Amino acid sequence: MKRYEQVVQTLAQRIEQGVYRVGDRLPSIRALCREQGVSVSTAQEAYRRLEEAGFAEARPRSGYYVLPRTTPSVLPKVSRPAQRPLDVSQWDQVLELVRGTPGEDEMLMLGRGIPDLGAATLRPLQRLLATLHRRVDARGLNYDSLAGSRELRQQVARQATTSGCLLHPDDVLITTGCQEALSLSLRTLTAPGEVVAVDSPSFYGTMQILKAQGLKALEIPTDPQIGISLEALELALEQWPVRAIQVTPTCNNPLGYTMPEPRKQALVALAQRFDVAIIEDDIYGDLAFTTPRPRTIKSFDDEGRVLLCSSFSKTLVPGLRVGWMAPGRYRDQAMHMKYVSTGASATLPQQAVAEFIAHGYYERHLHEMNRQYQRHRDILLGWVERYFPAGTGVSYPQGGFLLWLELPGGIDCVRLNDRLARERLHIAPGSLFSASGKYRHCLRLNYAAPLTASIEAAVQRVGETVMAMQEEQAALVS
Amino acid sequence: MKRYEQVVQTLAQRIEQGVYRVGDRLPSIRALCREQGVSVSTAQEAYRRLEEAGFAEARPRSGYYVLPRTTPSVLPKVSRPAQRPLDVSQWDQVLELVRGTPGEDEMLMLGRGIPDLGAATLRPLQRLLATLHRRVDARGLNYDSLAGSRELRQQVARQATTSGCLLHPDDVLITTGCQEALSLSLRTLTAPGEVVAVDSPSFYGTMQILKAQGLKALEIPTDPQIGISLEALELALEQWPVRAIQVTPTCNNPLGYTMPEPRKQALVALAQRFDVAIIEDDIYGDLAFTTPRPRTIKSFDDEGRVLLCSSFSKTLVPGLRVGWMAPGRYRDQAMHMKYVSTGASATLPQQAVAEFIAHGYYERHLHEMNRQYQRHRDILLGWVERYFPAGTGVSYPQGGFLLWLELPGGIDCVRLNDRLARERLHIAPGSLFSASGKYRHCLRLNYAAPLTASIEAAVQRVGETVMAMQEEQAALVS
Ligand SMILES: Cc1ncc(COP(=O)(O)O)c(C=O)c1O
Ligand SMILES: Cc1ncc(COP(=O)(O)O)c(C=O)c1O
Repeated sequence: MKRYEQVVQTLAQRIEQGVYRVGDRLPSIRALCREQGVSVSTAQEAYRRLEEAGFAEARPRSGYYVLPRTTPSVLPKVSRPAQRPLDVSQWDQVLELVRGTPGEDEMLMLGRGIPDLGAATLRPLQRLLATLHRRVDARGLNYDSLAGSRELRQQVARQATTSGCLLHPDDVLITTGCQEALSLSLRTLTAPGEVVAVDSPSFYGTMQILKAQGLKALEIPTDPQIGISLEALELALEQWPVRAIQVTPTCNNPLGYTMPEPRKQALVALAQRFDVAIIEDDIYGDLAFTTPRPRTIKSFDDEGRVLLCSSFSKTLVPGLRVGWMAPGRYRDQAMHMKYVSTGASATLPQQAVAEFIAHGYYERHLHEMNRQYQRHRDILLGWVERYFPAGTGVSYPQGGFLLWLELPGGIDCVRLNDRLARERLHIAPGSLFSASGKYRHCLRLNYAAPLTASIEAAVQRVGETVMAMQEEQAALVS
Repeated sequence: MKRYEQVVQTLAQRIEQGVYRVGDRLPSIRALCREQGVSVSTAQEAYRRLEEAGFAEARPRSGYYVLPRTTPSVLPKVSRPAQRPLDVSQWDQVLELVRGTPGEDEMLMLGRGIPDLGAATLRPLQRLLATLHRRVDARGLNYDSLAGSRELRQQVARQATTSGCLLHPDDVLITTGCQEALSLSLRTLTAPGEVVAVDSPSFYGTMQILKAQGLKALEIPTDPQIGISLEALELALEQWPVRAIQVTPTCNNPLGYTMPEPRKQALVALAQRFDVAIIEDDIYGDLAFTTPRPRTIKSFDDEGRVLLCSSFSKTLVPGLRVGWMAPGRYRDQAMHMKYVSTGASATLPQQAVAEFIAHGYYERHLHEMNRQYQRHRDILLGWVERYFPAGTGVSYPQGGFLLWLELPGGIDCVRLNDRLARERLHIAPGSLFSASGKYRHCLRLNYAAPLTASIEAAVQRVGETVMAMQEEQAALVS
């Protein structure tokens, strides 16, 4: 056995024994040399091999980190939705998730889409908000202009260059959260009874817009690593009168994948060929773990066919309700829809976010958050591996702070939630993410906030409850 | 001539000569005794006669105030809209009014629906906002609960007792402005193509919702003093498949009337008879010049048939976008519509408004504003009498801060606006307030903020421009 092979073996054993846990930073090259009495090149070779074997990954200017073991962990399967236009249901379950104020009822909501609100890099935002509200003049109390404050539209347009988009401030419309951007987009493009193609699973908020507007969801099979199946989409476009395609292609909620750029480009081409609009939800896009962040579909669109929707609810805080859209060639109709929906958006939060970006705080915050979320992803992957039954499928998010699990053996996550409620735990059942309540055997977990011991204990309880349900099921069958 | 008659004559002359102007407080009884060398009972008798003759009005615990001369001033005529369901147009003109940020383009917007944002009694709101934003914790940054903060719903429910409404906090849904409340109400009740009966003229924001949702407006004749014609409405309900009645019965925008209570009650009875819902816009209701404020239609409804919509945009400030609705028996659907429209409303502004009310600042602010607005109404009525052509019809608002003028001789207010634009003045042309652009010879003026010399000059310029247009027209005809 060569010297570096011995080092690899030692490190691999320690990882397997849990000396180093998923998401931990491994010793630096220097430290490893000292500890093992080897040369720098031997240590480097050892890490290269460890990386090849899937035990660790290098992060630029930071070091090597323990990866979740990829061998036993299984990806969720490619989804197989109905592939015909369906009415959307599931409102009762969504309401259960969104009704309450977190904390108010002491329920530990493990599945909600909320970022880390305690992050230190958010503090300048609070300072800006306090200052603006102290110094507020009549303009700050008045209706803002309908499209939104010019300063914020300018910052949004500048920021969009990081995703390959060339936007003019006048291309941007400020909205009351991404939810309003999505609602306006759908109202701009469709009339009741019409069909919208969606990736699947898909954000329940969008699903419920379809329901409220009397639209039909055409759920397209979606791969947990590369997104919506273009092949299936093409067939669907041939077969059904699709009015719009709605996708979340970057750091997808709930699956965490990012569509590879060539596929994004191909999606635009497909939309052109069938002359259909695309609603691109990019709300998690700035939380990608790669730098520069992936391009938007919009950045490949030179016809104004893509309505890009986003907000600062995941990248900063949701409570301000500051979102935006770039509705392309549909700007005039979108503006009318915006006016009748809520009029101008609130004035001061727009100013605060604009200044936060202008001062460079946003970039810094993203940088910190994306490191944190990536670390947390790995830790949560480790917990899932440890506490959930073998055969549990689990996503491998490329950004954001949401994990998707696919439970083996037909466990029903709505029933799981009922059981967990006794322990004041709550997960987001997969059925929320489908028009017709598919994915009941799936669930979504959040890893944004610090993964404390009590969260680990909660994840462990969820895993144990799943296993208990499995055993009960097995007992019934036998 | 009796002694008191001499005093009356003296005072009347001074008023006619402009020594005392409309809205001015006349000398106190004591001062009048001293000045005229008369007894208290003579001074009292003089004021009684002056009041009878329509020169002045008594305000409790305050004194006598000069009234606009009622003899020459003409009320606007009862409206005569089309009385068949129409598609709504006029978006371009509405956009012109709402697009810009006031101040940004140095246009003096004489017609916008904006309260006095410089009021001293608003300062505690700014203090509360600053404090809340300085002390903000994770809850303040997070999504609020979907129905809105419990504290604010409690305050809204309590406040609603002043309008005779018994609401439970759970009956209240916080919205992003009254605009969202109206949008949600209409989406809850109707589907595209259906018919909504409205008072006429009617707030352009609601008209544009009808347009955006593909609804048809059935405009009902409306009296400038007592509101929608119940007789005409009854005929319309017999003739057309009306899905909802939308009215602004208290301190109406734009006409300023308040429907007498028996008529409000009769409207509920009519809605019951035809089994149709009422959307009641009460956004100006707390700005009535009488104490206690008039009752809402909702207060006469024991079937949950009325969806009450309001906000703090006129009573406090519009830039916070805090509104609410009490959707009665339609609560569940309204909640769903709220979720898909914008999700939960912004968190901190709700807390600020709740505390503002709880601390009694709201009552105090209303008290001050309503005195101010009443005073301003009288002053503006005086200016209109002085600067506008004879035969100009003018409303006599019972609350709020908006005046409606009906110009004689077929003057077109859209053209008037074009002329005024050269002097950077802008009025709200009456055509905004009709589905099909009726009321082009009418316009709306705002008297909320201090009526400075430059506003007087602007009103004078509007009057002069109207007269110039009249002369040009006369020259053309002859
Ligand atoms: C994919 C996606 N789109 C839109 C939204 C709604 O965003 P906002 O809170 O800004 O309205 C969410 C929030 O959960 C989301 O996850
Ligand atoms: C009668 C009426 N209803 C509703 C609104 C919209 O109110 P908000 O600004 O709270 O959305 C207005 C504002 O102009 C109004 O005058």
